Amino acid sequence: MKIRDMAEAASKASISLAAAGGEIKNGALAEIARALESSAAEIVRANKEDLDRSGRENLAGPLMKRLTFDEKKIREVIDGIRSLIALPDPVGKTQLATELDKGLELYRVSCPIGVIGIIFESRPDALVQISSLCLKSGNAALLKGGSEARETNAILAETIRAAGTRAGLPGGWLQLLETRADVGEMLKMDEYIDLIIPRGSNEFVRHIMDNSRIPVLGHADGICHCYVDARADIGLAVDVVVDSKTQYVAVCNAAETLLVHSSIAPEFLPAVKKALESKKVSLVGCEKTGEIIDVAAASEEDWKTEYLDYRLSIKVVESLDEAIDHINRYGSGHTDAIITTDKPSAARFMDLVDSGNVFWNCSTRFSDGFRYGFGAEVGISTNKIHARGPVGLDGLLIYKYKLAGSGQIVADYAEGRKKFTHRPLSGEFKI
Amino acid sequence: MKIRDMAEAASKASISLAAAGGEIKNGALAEIARALESSAAEIVRANKEDLDRSGRENLAGPLMKRLTFDEKKIREVIDGIRSLIALPDPVGKTQLATELDKGLELYRVSCPIGVIGIIFESRPDALVQISSLCLKSGNAALLKGGSEARETNAILAETIRAAGTRAGLPGGWLQLLETRADVGEMLKMDEYIDLIIPRGSNEFVRHIMDNSRIPVLGHADGICHCYVDARADIGLAVDVVVDSKTQYVAVCNAAETLLVHSSIAPEFLPAVKKALESKKVSLVGCEKTGEIIDVAAASEEDWKTEYLDYRLSIKVVESLDEAIDHINRYGSGHTDAIITTDKPSAARFMDLVDSGNVFWNCSTRFSDGFRYGFGAEVGISTNKIHARGPVGLDGLLIYKYKLAGSGQIVADYAEGRKKFTHRPLSGEFKI
Repeated sequence: MKIRDMAEAASKASISLAAAGGEIKNGALAEIARALESSAAEIVRANKEDLDRSGRENLAGPLMKRLTFDEKKIREVIDGIRSLIALPDPVGKTQLATELDKGLELYRVSCPIGVIGIIFESRPDALVQISSLCLKSGNAALLKGGSEARETNAILAETIRAAGTRAGLPGGWLQLLETRADVGEMLKMDEYIDLIIPRGSNEFVRHIMDNSRIPVLGHADGICHCYVDARADIGLAVDVVVDSKTQYVAVCNAAETLLVHSSIAPEFLPAVKKALESKKVSLVGCEKTGEIIDVAAASEEDWKTEYLDYRLSIKVVESLDEAIDHINRYGSGHTDAIITTDKPSAARFMDLVDSGNVFWNCSTRFSDGFRYGFGAEVGISTNKIHARGPVGLDGLLIYKYKLAGSGQIVADYAEGRKKFTHRPLSGEFKI
Repeated sequence: MKIRDMAEAASKASISLAAAGGEIKNGALAEIARALESSAAEIVRANKEDLDRSGRENLAGPLMKRLTFDEKKIREVIDGIRSLIALPDPVGKTQLATELDKGLELYRVSCPIGVIGIIFESRPDALVQISSLCLKSGNAALLKGGSEARETNAILAETIRAAGTRAGLPGGWLQLLETRADVGEMLKMDEYIDLIIPRGSNEFVRHIMDNSRIPVLGHADGICHCYVDARADIGLAVDVVVDSKTQYVAVCNAAETLLVHSSIAPEFLPAVKKALESKKVSLVGCEKTGEIIDVAAASEEDWKTEYLDYRLSIKVVESLDEAIDHINRYGSGHTDAIITTDKPSAARFMDLVDSGNVFWNCSTRFSDGFRYGFGAEVGISTNKIHARGPVGLDGLLIYKYKLAGSGQIVADYAEGRKKFTHRPLSGEFKI
């Protein structure tokens, strides 16, 4: 099937999916959970093929781990689907209701965006998670997974698609793309696809962003900072920096650069060096850092680099504002933390750092939809419109205005025969 | 000054403007209102230069009217600024507050988007309106007006910029671009500009959308429909269709196509023809329409055309679903109305028509921020993300997450030593 035909079918399906009630969508989610349960053995077998082949092709260890989709992972994604069923239907919620005039009532009602294109690298759990989020929010989905997981993705997508269709979803609601060339085609389908969500490495996401006119929800880089202010508790600062850097180095919300106020640097830098080196973190630093502790010299390039590794760049700054300027210049607008006992400094930092997540006295690693209590996570966005920071189901929704009248025409208001009342209404839209 | 330098200056200014309190912004708005008042004579004189030159260049009558910026218009924009001052500060509102754990509190707080690029054709009032909306919402603005209004725009922008700066706004908060080539440059500044709002003809807006990677808020086409269902009050349907088509033909929310159910067409079409022809509307229709009333034949092209003129295309459909499919295929997702006495038909139409505004028994012309009671209007959006339909101040805002802790690290939660509470909090964020 051509990608254009697939995208058109998704667009058609999205119309009736948008109007499907919560019961139909929850019924389909339940059917999908059951189908995954009863196909578990087959899924594990398909995954073993992917693992065997990738093993022969010498896929790196961490990627092999991400590719693994065993009984335990299957149970986890099924639990995820069941907790999604328990959430209220996010579609059809009245967000605003105004009487424009007697018998002329305006409602702003949440609705799905339409068709979501999802592109992800190795992890097959992402396929299950994001397609169930799309379904819960009434969106049609086009999926493309990494080729190393092709057998696992094929059986997962087919199991989910068939179960959903059995439960009454419109044909075309979920479709799997097969080749890398298909992705290129999909990125051109701005007529039918409303939003692209890419999950994977930063080069991969940047490639998507640079090659489509369709809006992209996500982040390319996660260049996160910890700034240790002039007045800070040394022990607390060391703990937060070590956690931000090392709790899981390969993720977007791990810290890459440490900024330290010059007045606390002589005391703080030796302490943090010791703690980081015990975790095998290699350090690079600016000239002033090098005057206090023994580190390799950082280059301009270091401030722009997302290491995703046991490596940290350090810069000594003369003021809070220098730290803020550095972050706004070199950061990626993802997550940045200040460690300080001074409240006005914390407030200024959180107001002036232009990032989706600004933290005070805690680890950058908290920047995550599950930790924020969203239950489900679509991804983390560094966009400045629509959705920013960790994105839950909300990010898959937009709204439409429904205006119910009784024959009103604008001429009566334009010519002064009638006047708008603009009175707030209570209650949900219903006919 | 190079456009890149202007955009960088705007980006820098946007950081402190984002943190400016409501009093500073309102103080600047008041100073701008006073400055416009005291410069009124100069502004009118500059506008007269534009009008004289455009008259010599034979600018069309309606455009001359849009270009006119007299004492009355000045009073109107000043009134607009004063009503904006009366609105609460939209920045810094807590949208969500959750205790993640004891002493670890998450707040989602509204904030400006950053730098807005605004491009508008002839009307100088748009310059004042949108720059004051940007200021109220804490955004920096780069403006480009139509060359026919260059003298008026220059004095307006300089008056506003100088008044704002006098009132304490950061330099670079408002800048006026001068040439058409500047616009091309501006569209490339995705590093510094977060959102483009184009106001003008549909060709103009489409050009902008096709030539920038910066998100665009607005609409290219307004191909709006009225659908007269099988069961409809003929008199009411005629009134609504006539108002939708003729109350103001040159605007995006005027109807361009009339769809009529075949069972009511023999009675309805002659009645609406008579009413429309008395307003000098010329009609084109499908074959079935032509069997009932005397009209020129419509071509495929007619269904895709925004006439913005006294012209209407008519199609007879066999069912509600055929009407919905036609609208979703040929419409522009702007505003579409059903006229019916049948509630389930109205509900189905409003659920399945994928447009920002779906109306029942009222004119498409109500689709407007002022009529919706928003007070101020940024524009009307056919986007499927961020903001849809008429957009008020909200469309110029996004949010950031502020997380205030007391030394928490993720390792404690990942390793089971601590548990998240995820308890809703009441109250605004404050340090």
